[in-house]
Amino acid sequence: MPDHSPRRRRIVIVGGGFGGLACARALAGAEVDVTLVDRRNHHLFQPLLYQVSTAALSPADIAVPIRRVLSRAKNVEVLLAEVAGVDVAEKRVRLADGGALPYDQLVLATGSVYNYFGHSDWAETAPAPKTLASARTIRARLLRAFEDAERSDDPDERRRLLTFVVVGGGPTGVEMAGTVAELARHTLSGDFRRIDPAQARVVLVEAGPKLLAAFPEELARYAARALERLGVEVRLGCGVEAIDEAGVQLHGERLPAATVIWGAGTRAADGANWLGGTEDRGGRIRVAANMAVEKQEDIFALGDVALLEQDGAPLPGLAQVAQQQGRFLGKELRTRAVPRAFRYRSKGDTAVIGRHAAVYTWGKWRLKGLPAWLLWALVHVYLLIGFERRTLVMIQWAWRYLTFERGARLID
Amino acid sequence: MPDHSPRRRRIVIVGGGFGGLACARALAGAEVDVTLVDRRNHHLFQPLLYQVSTAALSPADIAVPIRRVLSRAKNVEVLLAEVAGVDVAEKRVRLADGGALPYDQLVLATGSVYNYFGHSDWAETAPAPKTLASARTIRARLLRAFEDAERSDDPDERRRLLTFVVVGGGPTGVEMAGTVAELARHTLSGDFRRIDPAQARVVLVEAGPKLLAAFPEELARYAARALERLGVEVRLGCGVEAIDEAGVQLHGERLPAATVIWGAGTRAADGANWLGGTEDRGGRIRVAANMAVEKQEDIFALGDVALLEQDGAPLPGLAQVAQQQGRFLGKELRTRAVPRAFRYRSKGDTAVIGRHAAVYTWGKWRLKGLPAWLLWALVHVYLLIGFERRTLVMIQWAWRYLTFERGARLID
Repeated sequence: MPDHSPRRRRIVIVGGGFGGLACARALAGAEVDVTLVDRRNHHLFQPLLYQVSTAALSPADIAVPIRRVLSRAKNVEVLLAEVAGVDVAEKRVRLADGGALPYDQLVLATGSVYNYFGHSDWAETAPAPKTLASARTIRARLLRAFEDAERSDDPDERRRLLTFVVVGGGPTGVEMAGTVAELARHTLSGDFRRIDPAQARVVLVEAGPKLLAAFPEELARYAARALERLGVEVRLGCGVEAIDEAGVQLHGERLPAATVIWGAGTRAADGANWLGGTEDRGGRIRVAANMAVEKQEDIFALGDVALLEQDGAPLPGLAQVAQQQGRFLGKELRTRAVPRAFRYRSKGDTAVIGRHAAVYTWGKWRLKGLPAWLLWALVHVYLLIGFERRTLVMIQWAWRYLTFERGARLID
Repeated sequence: MPDHSPRRRRIVIVGGGFGGLACARALAGAEVDVTLVDRRNHHLFQPLLYQVSTAALSPADIAVPIRRVLSRAKNVEVLLAEVAGVDVAEKRVRLADGGALPYDQLVLATGSVYNYFGHSDWAETAPAPKTLASARTIRARLLRAFEDAERSDDPDERRRLLTFVVVGGGPTGVEMAGTVAELARHTLSGDFRRIDPAQARVVLVEAGPKLLAAFPEELARYAARALERLGVEVRLGCGVEAIDEAGVQLHGERLPAATVIWGAGTRAADGANWLGGTEDRGGRIRVAANMAVEKQEDIFALGDVALLEQDGAPLPGLAQVAQQQGRFLGKELRTRAVPRAFRYRSKGDTAVIGRHAAVYTWGKWRLKGLPAWLLWALVHVYLLIGFERRTLVMIQWAWRYLTFERGARLID
């Protein structure tokens, strides 16, 4: 780091997701030295990860090197490293390889991981689409199940191989179930000789009484109907009791299934545990309206790892929340040591169900079906970082929309 | 397989590379039942694999599901399975999982693997770009070396991290060395704060007296000059004595290097060993002019796994050889049990050195520099299977040509 005199403020940001990256970008060119640490070299456009899991997009279509995004921000350093903890008293971030990063101000934006609610042994059998690696695993399992079914002569085993269970009726679960059904019914049709991929059974299991709990009743019902039209069996009020290689044990029913995909709830990633004693039950760090951690005014937390209440309710774990927080905090820290209070302004929530079917809600506004899908597609393509990516993804989508083709059907 | 009476001829093809796939396509719609077996679900466009290794293209850009390519060939079955051997007496292909495929005629198109000339322990340290997995490994190591160099404070270690050794001066080695140099000098420039990626040292080591042994002297010299202009150190007549984590031991010189890429020669993949006693030193199966294996008239071999002499010299291990052989054999087997003699017609050989630099030779024709590069680019994009892919790859290339950007800089 270049030497300055008087010494400039040093800001360390942990995490290159939507929150951390937005914060670093907002600090570009300011009179501070910024270090962004992430254990991955890429920023991931997580809202489209389910499309990698279902072979519609390639990993590189939804990931950009963090370094590249911040290339012109000469006061920002990017470090590929794993964080082990924080020395609050010494004001240093400890790295797993023994190094340390001194800071004047620290921003924790470590995000979230999937929550198996005490059943961490299920993670192996029922992967969740959260990283490129897990999305690739899901993609390979989905495709391999059809391959194995094509080779099997045992009708029961064939049925098990062609049964796909998605756990969790939130946006991720709804998206996964819809696209798996489309993959089976459209993309793979005609490619096999002994099986008919369209006979595949896709079951969406949700413990609560409705899908998309955060959405209005009307849209939740529409989503269930749209999924059923795609051939998905929607099971509401149905808890999962066990998951193993052979299938899923539901309350009172055994469902033999070779492929189980997890999408049921997240919890905060590491971060709160580095500070000690400030987290809620979900592991999130309680922060004030200006994102400062209680009693640690030099440490800020935002995005999925943070718990910020606004109008009496915690802000939801959405990319747009993290991004707005990051941008706001970055702008504030350019000039002030103590940021002002942040206020989240929702741009609406969407969940996509399949080709030309989605739901969108914003305040009293509701949109469903094709208009919601078009809005969703437009917004998501726009949000993808980088011009080339945007153009290419748009062309790929247009092409696939017309042909049902999928470009990334790879089993490694 | 549907039952026919009288029973149709059963042809089993092992391998979905250029040779096997061309053979299966040529048999589409014929009065025979074809089964194509491959242990991977995708056909790989190997000539562009070095571009995946150097983060220019995504794996899915150069791979298509074999099933998809043969979707309309209703008499062709595709099986994702590993072949364990051949029961010549019983006329059955044995699968690793215990299954068996009876055949009337068998086509072996299993291709080649990299040859470490007795040093198979080097494979881990010096991966070769041959499969998607190994290309991804190389890509991650290349990118990680720059990341680690950015974090290192030790000048010697930094130098070691920024030294890249490519072993083998054939087309693969030349392509790898050229693109690694471009990656360092152009793509990554400006993305780091402590190192200058352009300071990276790229060394191309070749045991023989010249690069591109199969090319005319003039083009080989041009390739060496063009590489040197890109900043590559070309070492000719320089054998590798040892490779380990710390670097490469050359004859009389120790070269500390964190990244070593292997591109020095191939040998036949499994295939010859299934038949016993028909292979040459390189493990290739000797075949007659009609591709029939000696004394096994129901078994054919083609592509890199076969040794076919034409005008007194063995045909080279090139995609175009395999493809022509496969297409020819498939057409012949549509109507005859005994195919006629094959004749290879070269469309010329190319090797690409970097942006707008390549060499091309065809008979007495020689082309170098930009014209050769344009020809190469045109031909390779054209050969990529599938319309969407072609368009997209062309757009990506055009974009990268203008910007030096790379779309697939992922470390998993």
